[in-house]
Amino acid sequence: MHHFISGMAGFIGSHLADSLLRAGHKVSGADDLSLGRLEHLENAHRNPGFRFFEADCSQREAAIQTLRAAAEWGGRPHMIWHMAANSDIAAGVSDPTVDFSRTLMTTFSVLEAARDLGVRCVAFASTSAVYGERAGQLEEDSGPLLPISNYGAAKLAGEALLSAAAEAWLDRIWICRFPNVVGHRATHGAIFDFISRLKMSPVELRVLGDGTQTKPYLHVSDLISAMEFVVANAQGRRNVFNIAPEGEGTSVAFIAKQTVARVAPGAAIRYEGGDRGWIGDVPKFRFSTARLAGLGWRPSLSSDAAVLRAIDELSAAALGQQRSDVLV
Amino acid sequence: MHHFISGMAGFIGSHLADSLLRAGHKVSGADDLSLGRLEHLENAHRNPGFRFFEADCSQREAAIQTLRAAAEWGGRPHMIWHMAANSDIAAGVSDPTVDFSRTLMTTFSVLEAARDLGVRCVAFASTSAVYGERAGQLEEDSGPLLPISNYGAAKLAGEALLSAAAEAWLDRIWICRFPNVVGHRATHGAIFDFISRLKMSPVELRVLGDGTQTKPYLHVSDLISAMEFVVANAQGRRNVFNIAPEGEGTSVAFIAKQTVARVAPGAAIRYEGGDRGWIGDVPKFRFSTARLAGLGWRPSLSSDAAVLRAIDELSAAALGQQRSDVLV
Repeated sequence: MHHFISGMAGFIGSHLADSLLRAGHKVSGADDLSLGRLEHLENAHRNPGFRFFEADCSQREAAIQTLRAAAEWGGRPHMIWHMAANSDIAAGVSDPTVDFSRTLMTTFSVLEAARDLGVRCVAFASTSAVYGERAGQLEEDSGPLLPISNYGAAKLAGEALLSAAAEAWLDRIWICRFPNVVGHRATHGAIFDFISRLKMSPVELRVLGDGTQTKPYLHVSDLISAMEFVVANAQGRRNVFNIAPEGEGTSVAFIAKQTVARVAPGAAIRYEGGDRGWIGDVPKFRFSTARLAGLGWRPSLSSDAAVLRAIDELSAAALGQQRSDVLV
Repeated sequence: MHHFISGMAGFIGSHLADSLLRAGHKVSGADDLSLGRLEHLENAHRNPGFRFFEADCSQREAAIQTLRAAAEWGGRPHMIWHMAANSDIAAGVSDPTVDFSRTLMTTFSVLEAARDLGVRCVAFASTSAVYGERAGQLEEDSGPLLPISNYGAAKLAGEALLSAAAEAWLDRIWICRFPNVVGHRATHGAIFDFISRLKMSPVELRVLGDGTQTKPYLHVSDLISAMEFVVANAQGRRNVFNIAPEGEGTSVAFIAKQTVARVAPGAAIRYEGGDRGWIGDVPKFRFSTARLAGLGWRPSLSSDAAVLRAIDELSAAALGQQRSDVLV
C-alpha cells in the first residue's frame, strides 16, 4: 500500500517512514525542511519504494500539487499520515502566526489536497495540549477542551477540521494525542535542550521552572508502534486515542539529573523557579491510556526508561556531531 | 464604555449594537457586508456614539487597521464582541474554504488586532455545533468535541484560539454557544427559508428532511440579553456558556405548519425525507442550560414562542418588502 506522510523529514515523520518501509509499504511524503532534516531520511532514500517532495504544505495549492505528484509517482495514496506542524510550543507563544500558519493552515491544506485526490483515510498527530490545564486523568471523551498554548489550539482546530471532513467526505480518521515524545532525531524538547546547553557550558545547567513539572514521556519507537496499531485496529469513523506510557510520568528534575550524569558529570543544576517552563506549558498532566490498552496495545518502555534511552541516543548523536565538527 | 463589534451589520451583531447603544455605550464595529446589511444599522446610525467601518476582518492587516481606526475615533475599546462569521452552515459543506477563511481566519485576525491594540476582553459567538452529534444533554464541560460541519469546526477552532490567548495576553474571554437564533433581521435559517419559498410559491412548501429534526430556538432579543448578562456576571478567565431556551426545543414540522398557517394558509407541506436537512446538520440536540440558569439568567420566551414571534416578524418584514417592491 502507498502511504503519504506530511512532515516526513521531521523527528516523528521520519521514524514513521522508516517503519512503513520496513513493513514493505510504498512511502511518499513532503516536508518544507523548516524543522525537518534531509539527513533523517538517509536510510529511507536507499529504498526504491520511497519518494520525498520538498514542499510547503501550509499553502493549499502547494499541498494539492504535491499530493498529485505523489499519486503520479506511486498511485493514489491509501492514506495520509498528517504529521506536519510547528512542533516548538514555546515559539508559538510570542508569535501566534507561527502555529496558525504552520500547524493549522497546513492541516487545512493537506485536507484540501486529500479531498482533491479522493484520499479517504487520515491519521493525525494531535497532542495532550488540546486538553489545556486540567487536574485528574485526561480521558479522550472528557471536556472541556480549552488549550493554553497556540500549539494546543492549532492542534484542536485540526482535530475539528478532520472531524467535520469525516462527516462529508472522509471515511475514517485517527486522532492520536501524543504525550512528550523523545528519542533519536528529536529536534527540540527538554532532553535535547539540556544536552545542547551542557555541550556549550558543561559546568552548570540552567533549567526553566522549578523541576517539578511532571509529564509522560514516550519513546518514539513506542509512539510509532502505537500509531500503527491504532490505525490497524480502530475501526470507527472517528477514532480518538491518547498515546502514552503507563504510570505517573517523569519530572524535569529527573531528566536534568540524568542528563547531567551522562553528559557532564558534576555540573551544577540551577532551577529558574516557577511551576512551568514558559507561558502555555502545562506543568503536570496525566493521560488516561485505558482506551489504548483496551484496544490491546502496551508500551515497551516506561516514561523514565524512555527518557534514559533518549538521553543515551541524543548524547551519542551530539558526541558524533562534535566529532564531525572537529573533523571538519 | 466603548464596545467594538465584528460582524456588526449581521443579524445578531446589529441587534447587539442597538442594545449597547440603548444602554448608553459608545459602539463601533466592522462588517464586510457579505451577509450583513447596512439597513440593519439604520437606527444605530442616528446615534452619535456609533461608528461603522466597512472592512473584511478575515485579513489580518485589515483587522488591525480597522481596530486602530476605531480606537482613533472612540478610544481603545473596552472589549470586543466577535460576531463575524459565515453563518450559513450548509454553504460550508460543499466548500470548506468558506468557513476556514470567513469564520476561522476572521477569528485569528480579530484576535491579532486585539493583541496589537491591547484590548484584553473578548466575547465570542460560538455554537452548539461544536458538540457535533451526541445524545443526551450537552453540558459545557463535556466532551468529546467532534463537530460534523465545517461551521462547527471553525467555531471550535476559534474557541481554542481564544483559550490560548487567554493564557498569554487576554484577561477574560466569554464563549457563548448559541442555539438556533431567530427573529427580525435573520438572513437565513428555516423560518427565513420557508417564508421566502412560500412567497415564491404559495401552494406548496418543500421541507428538507422529514420534519422531525428538533432543536432549541432562541429569540434574538433573549440571546442579546443572555450574552450581556454573561459578560456582566461571569468573572472567570475563560467563561463558557450554552445559551438556549428551556425545554425540548421545536420540531421543523411545527415551524413548517405555523409558517404555512401565517403566510400561505392551505399550502401543502412536502417533506423531502431523511433525518436531517443537509450533511453536517445535527438533527436533534438538547443544550443543558444549568450553568446559565445558575448564573441567574432565564429566557423570556420558550422555543415555540420564539419561533412564533419570529414567523410574525419575518413575515411582516417580507410583506413590507413585497409592498415596497410594488411601490418601486
